[in-house]
Amino acid sequence: MINCEYYNPTRIIFGKDTEKQVGELVSHYAKSVLVVYGGKSAKASGLLDRVFDSLKEAGISYMELGGVKPNPRLSLVYEGIEIAKKNNIEMILAVGGGSVIDTAKGIAAGAVYDGDVWDFYTVTLPEKALPVATVLTIPAAGSESSTGSVITNEEKKEKRACDHECLIPKFSILNPELTYTLPNYQIACGVADAMAHIFERYFSNEKAADVTDRLGESVLKSLMKYAPIAIKENENYEARAEIMWACKIAHDGTLGVGKVGDWASHNIEHELSAFNDVAHGAGLAIVFPAWMRYTYKQDKNLFLQFVARVLNVDIDYEYVDYSINLGIDKLKEFFKSIGLPTSLSEIGIYEKDIRGIAEHAIYVNDGEPLGNFVKLSADDIENIYRLAL
Amino acid sequence: MINCEYYNPTRIIFGKDTEKQVGELVSHYAKSVLVVYGGKSAKASGLLDRVFDSLKEAGISYMELGGVKPNPRLSLVYEGIEIAKKNNIEMILAVGGGSVIDTAKGIAAGAVYDGDVWDFYTVTLPEKALPVATVLTIPAAGSESSTGSVITNEEKKEKRACDHECLIPKFSILNPELTYTLPNYQIACGVADAMAHIFERYFSNEKAADVTDRLGESVLKSLMKYAPIAIKENENYEARAEIMWACKIAHDGTLGVGKVGDWASHNIEHELSAFNDVAHGAGLAIVFPAWMRYTYKQDKNLFLQFVARVLNVDIDYEYVDYSINLGIDKLKEFFKSIGLPTSLSEIGIYEKDIRGIAEHAIYVNDGEPLGNFVKLSADDIENIYRLAL
Repeated sequence: MINCEYYNPTRIIFGKDTEKQVGELVSHYAKSVLVVYGGKSAKASGLLDRVFDSLKEAGISYMELGGVKPNPRLSLVYEGIEIAKKNNIEMILAVGGGSVIDTAKGIAAGAVYDGDVWDFYTVTLPEKALPVATVLTIPAAGSESSTGSVITNEEKKEKRACDHECLIPKFSILNPELTYTLPNYQIACGVADAMAHIFERYFSNEKAADVTDRLGESVLKSLMKYAPIAIKENENYEARAEIMWACKIAHDGTLGVGKVGDWASHNIEHELSAFNDVAHGAGLAIVFPAWMRYTYKQDKNLFLQFVARVLNVDIDYEYVDYSINLGIDKLKEFFKSIGLPTSLSEIGIYEKDIRGIAEHAIYVNDGEPLGNFVKLSADDIENIYRLAL
Repeated sequence: MINCEYYNPTRIIFGKDTEKQVGELVSHYAKSVLVVYGGKSAKASGLLDRVFDSLKEAGISYMELGGVKPNPRLSLVYEGIEIAKKNNIEMILAVGGGSVIDTAKGIAAGAVYDGDVWDFYTVTLPEKALPVATVLTIPAAGSESSTGSVITNEEKKEKRACDHECLIPKFSILNPELTYTLPNYQIACGVADAMAHIFERYFSNEKAADVTDRLGESVLKSLMKYAPIAIKENENYEARAEIMWACKIAHDGTLGVGKVGDWASHNIEHELSAFNDVAHGAGLAIVFPAWMRYTYKQDKNLFLQFVARVLNVDIDYEYVDYSINLGIDKLKEFFKSIGLPTSLSEIGIYEKDIRGIAEHAIYVNDGEPLGNFVKLSADDIENIYRLAL
């Protein structure tokens, strides 16, 4: 295990009806709160009303700011900062998924800053922020217990991240029932994204991290067990709960302790999303099996461990390459079974496109190769895309 | 999964030489610190000097209070409180194991309280405390990221606990190298204690907690893999690191998410420790296999899962009771292999003693049966002790 830090301070309130505790929880931090949310579904489902009722009951005054969209915009962050400053708002409460939380974090940092909040996404870091909390409506946001906020500056057409511990939510409410109404495709993408986050840390040249490896395998197995159930039976509480908890752990740093992550596949996927707007989780379902097939020779034993323990492959030790590829086939089948694409052609990317995309992946990485487990050049990335055609 | 809260805010600094960061870490909270420690080993090993050097370098003034013993005493807590109050101490730093940390927590609560700190262990709870931090020298203290402090009032001959979030350490430094010099028996006891904490949560009537179950199985497997290595090769960093990290997770609440714990075996063991002063972990190694043999019929499938996944038993589905008992035998053999007792006779407790001990276990539980997975009467406890003779 390499030297590392583990810091995971968000209080998680998990279970049925837990959004009704939000007023009492907020009261430990603030008397006035700005509630940030997305579109109509939080209103239509009655969730926002339950949140407002709980705030009222606890004597918390609140204002609201709706309209957060995917790839959350800086203009709405500015709007929230103005509301917060004018009205002595003491806490920002996000009711929604990752985009809503990231917006709330931007507002929280900007509300106690005299300059332009975009500074924190470009040239400096916030020293302080209003406390942030969340009522999560999707699994696998990640942002519910992380330091990060990603915001898009529409004018400059730039998408940038700000990471600081002052942005870690004080508490996050995870009620699996709130995820019942999500489209199956979104659940599948969330599961693939959580799995990919585990893969990025699992496939590492730091071999001595047995506890972390096994924990990662555990979460992968649970995700693969419950994703098909959640998709078939949308209101199966058990499945929703296991997925929501598994995704929380996949994103909170627990599964990276003592290891160096790879993260090439995330970059390789980002290029696909940029090229044709495929959902991040879906792109990862295409990239990862191809990345595995291309890189497994770097550490066949690690891949044997993975396919045996996670994918239940009965290893043929005479033909280990065959066994590993069998496992990768099974992973691909799993992604397919939950409705995700597993080839580039399914998302309209063809052989003629891949050289350019591969070169761009290296270009945006300042010309440096991608990854840690294996260092990938543009040629390597092209080969990986080719395996995914 | 049942509704639950997960709160695990201690910052963990993990790895080689990390004690040298203590001054910088303290500087975020305090300018003056009271360093609490135990006996000579922390001095002799040079650890205390490294801590003091780091504090000096960061401009932190410090005082020291040594002499903490196992079953830490209230009188030393009083001594620390007086030092803290007289010298404007702003933080308490524990350098040692569970007893040192529990003493530091008592001092931290008492230093900002006008009354008698024993109140917090008997009639009320602290509302605030000085910040506490730790440099851990044993795995499996538990106290390094918990709310609890257990102190013995020597005059009243009472051992009592105080639990409050204000006592959770702000940070804990875990350097596995600091555990090289621990006696093997103490490592074995720590491992058994950590395993027992997992068992208490694993064997639950709340079946739907797949992620938590699998995470627990993972930590159990790693502990069983590395304990024999650490005992054979005292300076094997990998083994020490995996054990230290596994023990941290076993005690920090992660493995209880969504479940109701049993905890009967802890009470059954406490009676053994009270009767003849056996180490807690050693007592648990005696109690748990017997408890398992007595209760497994409550949920044979759960025990099949346990023996198959954790103890690698090749299940004979025609004879499931045989398979389960084979697993329990393997667990017992494991405890034996790391030098722990596995029968009451080895610690000087015989058939003539067990009725009285069993009755006392119920007596100190206000006459109520023990446990949640199975409710145990005095007769049941006697039967369990009999299985452990």
